[in-house]
Amino acid sequence: MRHSNHRTHQKPNRLRAAKATPTSAADKTYWLYGTHPVSAALANENRRILRILATSAGAKALISPRADDSLPERPLLEPLDPKSLPEGVPEWAVHQGLLAQVRPLPESDPTLIERPETKRLVVLDQVTDPQNMGAILRTCAVFDVDGVVVPRHNAPGETGAMAKAASGALEVVPVLRVANLARSLDLMKKSGLFVIGLAGAADQAIADFAPVGRYALVAGAEGHGLRRLVSEHCDATVALPVANRATAAGIDSLNVGAAIAVALHELVRYQ
Amino acid sequence: MRHSNHRTHQKPNRLRAAKATPTSAADKTYWLYGTHPVSAALANENRRILRILATSAGAKALISPRADDSLPERPLLEPLDPKSLPEGVPEWAVHQGLLAQVRPLPESDPTLIERPETKRLVVLDQVTDPQNMGAILRTCAVFDVDGVVVPRHNAPGETGAMAKAASGALEVVPVLRVANLARSLDLMKKSGLFVIGLAGAADQAIADFAPVGRYALVAGAEGHGLRRLVSEHCDATVALPVANRATAAGIDSLNVGAAIAVALHELVRYQ
Repeated sequence: MRHSNHRTHQKPNRLRAAKATPTSAADKTYWLYGTHPVSAALANENRRILRILATSAGAKALISPRADDSLPERPLLEPLDPKSLPEGVPEWAVHQGLLAQVRPLPESDPTLIERPETKRLVVLDQVTDPQNMGAILRTCAVFDVDGVVVPRHNAPGETGAMAKAASGALEVVPVLRVANLARSLDLMKKSGLFVIGLAGAADQAIADFAPVGRYALVAGAEGHGLRRLVSEHCDATVALPVANRATAAGIDSLNVGAAIAVALHELVRYQ
Repeated sequence: MRHSNHRTHQKPNRLRAAKATPTSAADKTYWLYGTHPVSAALANENRRILRILATSAGAKALISPRADDSLPERPLLEPLDPKSLPEGVPEWAVHQGLLAQVRPLPESDPTLIERPETKRLVVLDQVTDPQNMGAILRTCAVFDVDGVVVPRHNAPGETGAMAKAASGALEVVPVLRVANLARSLDLMKKSGLFVIGLAGAADQAIADFAPVGRYALVAGAEGHGLRRLVSEHCDATVALPVANRATAAGIDSLNVGAAIAVALHELVRYQ
């Protein structure tokens, strides 16, 4: 089964790139679950949906998108028996009576990191937990971030757990998977984005940080911070305050998702 | 096996209260996993540890506490075979070669919410995800919060996943489980804490909020915000900014953990 019409707006070379990555493989499917993830997927013209399963409560809670010619045709709702979830939906999934079998989103436009209209980016280096990445996507939607950039070979692919934590944001915040993060940071700088690394051992406190216009905020792995290679490609590194009591107990940083939320909120102040 | 000497500093009536709750049941055990959770547990004089299992890498990464007479005796390290994890340790656990079988912590001192030396509290109403609660404990350690207050019958008990997300903070941030959250909020107010609710539909933006001294920050369930009953017991409710693009996509708030981090960071500014 092919639906090449979904990618007619892309150039052929990007189409090839999309085919080469497992997360965009045209034959892969997974299940979204929960009111927000499924409702947001229905409103996303780039989302291929194969099946929608709903209990009566789930169907009532579903937020259907406004009629819009740009939206592809959607499958009809099928009844969901919560006692026999389809294969691939974990038993512990908080599905709220709503499931959608989908294909992963097509690759994001790689010019995202070079376009002058891109104002804010978040770059994640080696964040591997899908739930963490989902929560970060939600945070990015709330703070109007234009996209999230991750290394192609060291970031989680789309999953139901990620979509659930993203609470719909997976459908609205583009995720760009790049081959070489350091090279991408250089491209961002060339396009005029100020590249700010979040690091424990940093030059400046975020609260004392000078106002910036367009920027990319770079955060590292849970518990490890930024790799030196990545940190060296930043225009500046900033730190968040940590109480002495926490340091004494071996806790030297926030969870990466909390750190990004604090930093974005702080940077918003200057805009 | 009984070790009643661990609670000799508590009054008899508190001992009774501790016995009555399932999370403090003296015969319950669970597994902590990961370098930070296990290292922090070793340094906590109130933590009962039954066994410690380690690979050679895990043992090397272990941060042993300084010799201290107040620390109870600890079991000797046993070798860990990562291919056969003990029952109760999930296969997906990122254990880093370190496991500790422990008893849940004893009940926290209920006077926490009334003591004049308590400067900052976080109150969680109906936060049910253990990983979320763990990340919030880590955030509370970083921002020097004196304790987290949750309803006894509607909050997750201690688990390995919670301890892992807390990254050691479970051992240093007291969790107080109360029978009646509204009554506890009233006690906090009586003790001079300013009770601030985090709500989507709020009177004030957090950034415009007047400086406060001692305070309790109250946050609601993932995706639902504060219950009216709880919100009515707050001195003020504050909101965090949300981009229009997010609202249009049905995303009207940050994840509860991210929201608490942003709010605590904002309130720190005034202290």
